[in-house]
Amino acid sequence: MNTQLQYAINGQITREMIEVAEAENVNSEWLRNEIAHGRVVIPKNVNHCFPARAIGNGLKTKINANIGTSEKHCNFNEEIEKLNVAVKYGADSIMDLSTGGDLHLILHQILKQSPVMVGTVPIYGVATRLLRRGKELNKFDPEELFNEIEFQAEAGVDFMTVHCGITKTSLSFLENDERVCGIVSRGGSILKHWMKFNKAENPLYEQYDRLLDICERHDVTLSLGDGIRPGCGEDASDRGQMAELLVLGELVDRARKRGVQVIVEGPGHMPIDQIEMNMKIMKKACKDAPFYVLGPLTTDSAPGYDHIVGAIGGAIAAIHGADFLCYVTPAEHLCLPDTDDVKQGVMASRIAAQSADVVNNIGGARQRDYEVSKARRDLDWEKIYKNSLDPEIARRRKQESESGEEDHCTMCGNLCAVKTDKIV
Amino acid sequence: MNTQLQYAINGQITREMIEVAEAENVNSEWLRNEIAHGRVVIPKNVNHCFPARAIGNGLKTKINANIGTSEKHCNFNEEIEKLNVAVKYGADSIMDLSTGGDLHLILHQILKQSPVMVGTVPIYGVATRLLRRGKELNKFDPEELFNEIEFQAEAGVDFMTVHCGITKTSLSFLENDERVCGIVSRGGSILKHWMKFNKAENPLYEQYDRLLDICERHDVTLSLGDGIRPGCGEDASDRGQMAELLVLGELVDRARKRGVQVIVEGPGHMPIDQIEMNMKIMKKACKDAPFYVLGPLTTDSAPGYDHIVGAIGGAIAAIHGADFLCYVTPAEHLCLPDTDDVKQGVMASRIAAQSADVVNNIGGARQRDYEVSKARRDLDWEKIYKNSLDPEIARRRKQESESGEEDHCTMCGNLCAVKTDKIV
Repeated sequence: MNTQLQYAINGQITREMIEVAEAENVNSEWLRNEIAHGRVVIPKNVNHCFPARAIGNGLKTKINANIGTSEKHCNFNEEIEKLNVAVKYGADSIMDLSTGGDLHLILHQILKQSPVMVGTVPIYGVATRLLRRGKELNKFDPEELFNEIEFQAEAGVDFMTVHCGITKTSLSFLENDERVCGIVSRGGSILKHWMKFNKAENPLYEQYDRLLDICERHDVTLSLGDGIRPGCGEDASDRGQMAELLVLGELVDRARKRGVQVIVEGPGHMPIDQIEMNMKIMKKACKDAPFYVLGPLTTDSAPGYDHIVGAIGGAIAAIHGADFLCYVTPAEHLCLPDTDDVKQGVMASRIAAQSADVVNNIGGARQRDYEVSKARRDLDWEKIYKNSLDPEIARRRKQESESGEEDHCTMCGNLCAVKTDKIV
Repeated sequence: MNTQLQYAINGQITREMIEVAEAENVNSEWLRNEIAHGRVVIPKNVNHCFPARAIGNGLKTKINANIGTSEKHCNFNEEIEKLNVAVKYGADSIMDLSTGGDLHLILHQILKQSPVMVGTVPIYGVATRLLRRGKELNKFDPEELFNEIEFQAEAGVDFMTVHCGITKTSLSFLENDERVCGIVSRGGSILKHWMKFNKAENPLYEQYDRLLDICERHDVTLSLGDGIRPGCGEDASDRGQMAELLVLGELVDRARKRGVQVIVEGPGHMPIDQIEMNMKIMKKACKDAPFYVLGPLTTDSAPGYDHIVGAIGGAIAAIHGADFLCYVTPAEHLCLPDTDDVKQGVMASRIAAQSADVVNNIGGARQRDYEVSKARRDLDWEKIYKNSLDPEIARRRKQESESGEEDHCTMCGNLCAVKTDKIV
């Protein structure tokens, strides 16, 4: 046995399950059962050493930060700095989406230095090498893609996004409808292009068992990508998106049967009133697999502020079933994020997760809110800072103001309602 | 006749109603009917000259920015700068909450310079003067409060927050229950303190008709304040809050009978799953009066980022009936906001309003999202900037990147999904 899912089905509570149960303050036998049913995953490659964390039903909402170089902006040290910033501000996982520089070297370094799980999108490496050789994206050899996946699995990657749901069938539903933005997933667009040019089925779908072999061997968690996700609110919940979801649901079954841990990715761009429905249909179609959402973004009109847009959508999604929020930074749709963007993106996602966990009464979220509130009542600023999601900024803003050392703040001065309300 | 409500009830379509109908692209007779029923207000003092805007059912969600000096931070020019920044980034109204410096001078200047409606909380002026005279807050003379209200009404203030719902009855429900944070409204805490010390009813409640006289004379829109609003998630929706709401509902009836326009203020701090219920009970209790919410804040744990927290709550509130969002800035709970805080607060509220207006299909919000999306599909960056909520930052981020002049951005480079998807 290799995977947490296999152990769980076999009734064995692993060291990783105990670690997670302690960190989340849940019963380890309950956790084992959730993992056995696929409602919770512990993405942790057998070759990767770090404190285990889990994603899924009944656990704290987790957040992911994407980092990585690109063709147009490639600075290795900056990416390591982003890794450190993301972890410092509370990211539960990192995805290395590098497409610039020595990709394998960068991945090795990130795997070595990250104290949290690491995910990738293996097709990026293949596509990057094609572009460098001056070749069209439709020219990639499926063997090269599987070699990359195998290489990354051996290197210790904990979860991989693979767009297996882009099939002839799901694409036909996309093409028989109209969309404003077409395909906005990089992996999705490459696979579609390859399939059209080669008049062939998606190799990640056709050779899914081969993919499962690799994942089973290293306990890589599959993150079934949503290559047909809507790229704008107008395209949300259309037949193409749903057709891919149905395929993903079938692939969840097949992964579980092979003992491979699996999560499912979701949109994307989506008006608020469609979020609950999407979370529910996803959980149904994919039999309660942990759901990993990008955003969702509730308006398309706020480039420069998409971390806020993503926080709105993420909070609502997490209340209705999303387990894992991929952060969105202020740089989204404009440029590669810098270090401050990474911080802002992580904080916005944590606020969304905290807001949802308060509702779901999970992971001490309500207790944290209560501690801050009590400290406010007591004008105990040190306790406010201590329990804040970002103690540094709370302390700095207060202390740098004219009322830095006072019990009240410069907003109200001595007209502070808390002080007035306490007068007997 | 003085008020828009009186004209509307009388079947007359005023110049202001025509202005609003044109700006909102709605039928003026429909608008008149909404105003006549109190579901829409046009806060515009007869002595204040600026382009009329309306708040309420079927109209774009509006946003307010609070500015103003305080005891501990008082710089007149800075407040005028905040006014300009708030208006530049899209605030539909300004509240001058000054409690430092020459309050009447500041108010006159803001009224003169503001191109949007101006609101106030008249009790702040009374309390500020008491504190300066070294007197306790329970020592204020109700006459002084009414004089201040009258002065401000004559000066041209368009809407005023008055905490008329703090009564012996509503306070008794507060006191018969337990709260973490007590009263966190400045006006509310002062009135409660005065009532307890003087063993008397709230003068704003007891002399409500006198208040209505003043408002009717100048067409000041009453903003019935929520003095017992919850100051943390734990306190949300408690009996004290609801008792005050019931009183406010009765006061809405009385205001309308006198032809006085009225809106109702709401919380505050509130877990996401209570927002819809609160909007619905408020609309019911107050017979569809326009609802003005502060936030609501969906977690207490994010000082330094409360603009994001408020955007989450505001978007959800606006979908379920809130018509007017009071911004929250990153400085909330820590210090008086500076100019950049004002910008960030306005932008976060506009994102919330836009996200809700997309769902409610109001005010061209969906069209704006569509234009941005189509421009993305076409990689038409100028059109993206033009239709963005903040064109400046979108342009700056893209143009300052290594791909400033290219069709793609530095996130994906030539792996841009939009480009790949377009290859025939």
